[in-house]
Amino acid sequence: MENMVSSTVVNTYPLSSYTFGTKEPKIEKDSSVADRLARMKLNYFKEGMRTSVEAILLVQEHKHPHILLLQIGNTFCKLPGGRLKPGENEIEGLKRKLTSKLGANQPSLQPNWQIGECVAIWWRPNFETVMYPYCPPHITKPKECKKLYIVHLSEREYFAVPKNLKLLAVPLFELYDNVQRYGPVISTIPQQLSRFQFNMITT
Amino acid sequence: MENMVSSTVVNTYPLSSYTFGTKEPKIEKDSSVADRLARMKLNYFKEGMRTSVEAILLVQEHKHPHILLLQIGNTFCKLPGGRLKPGENEIEGLKRKLTSKLGANQPSLQPNWQIGECVAIWWRPNFETVMYPYCPPHITKPKECKKLYIVHLSEREYFAVPKNLKLLAVPLFELYDNVQRYGPVISTIPQQLSRFQFNMITT
Repeated sequence: MENMVSSTVVNTYPLSSYTFGTKEPKIEKDSSVADRLARMKLNYFKEGMRTSVEAILLVQEHKHPHILLLQIGNTFCKLPGGRLKPGENEIEGLKRKLTSKLGANQPSLQPNWQIGECVAIWWRPNFETVMYPYCPPHITKPKECKKLYIVHLSEREYFAVPKNLKLLAVPLFELYDNVQRYGPVISTIPQQLSRFQFNMITT
Repeated sequence: MENMVSSTVVNTYPLSSYTFGTKEPKIEKDSSVADRLARMKLNYFKEGMRTSVEAILLVQEHKHPHILLLQIGNTFCKLPGGRLKPGENEIEGLKRKLTSKLGANQPSLQPNWQIGECVAIWWRPNFETVMYPYCPPHITKPKECKKLYIVHLSEREYFAVPKNLKLLAVPLFELYDNVQRYGPVISTIPQQLSRFQFNMITT
């Protein structure tokens, strides 16, 4: 695929090598889960199955991999990413979403998003919150397909975090086996990443 | 790596296209978890970290992927595979273990094991049962590294199952979110496989 980095070696730099600023808030489109599912249903009838793409951005602390998560309010965490436009290329769409969520407003400061391998695909069979890592039997019209990609970061980058969100670096050992806090998609990222070799670069 | 198939497309054939026979029992080396950990400790001091390799063998039923598991007694299930000899090549070692566990005694009937991608790596930090999908921080001498490989099956094969074991085809939807029954390694195989495209061949 165009502009895609295919490698099971991931260079990982210290959190301290990145710079974090702020930018205007990104207001959530929905104020409740019910609103979100209602909007999803409306979009489905207009555009068909939703494809969303999310990024696993890796940094290191104490030589252990950490993932960058966006925190909304005091508890809910999500991966940066979002919904593709109908027909949009996944790699280009993920870059667009990352720039919207974490890129600076000045084009010269925008991170060099190097999109790597797809590590997981989740399916939403119905207009409900539950998703599965396979399309369940007898489901012929899934409502959403969510793809998680590794994104390779350069040694130094500037991230602009929307003022209503917090960007957290969460260690793999905190995510692992913690479905209560992070949900089924994020809490199994350590298993998805286990086959990768992290090249911990201390600068 | 030699003899390795690297592809995210997996051709999957119906369970009914395979033939299952029996062979002499494979007696478990240890009669308890305590015995197993004691033998592991002894081997560690002789040979260093244990590397084990296990196979994800895929078939399909009703166009849903199923995994072949070996059942010991009435409850415990494991993937076919085992411990490498010191210095042994992983791919060759996995073929050796698969032939020992599931191959016929006649060489002409032995399956054509096509070893694919490594999908997960688990680490055992101590002489204990718990494993993690990363080497935990501060652990410099892990005791075991377990690697799970996809194994591509040909359209027709003959499997010889040791008489003291049962070979089960378990659907992904049964494994998913079922850590109580299958343990942390096997129950997250659906997530590891989610990025693969299964080409369901009905013959």
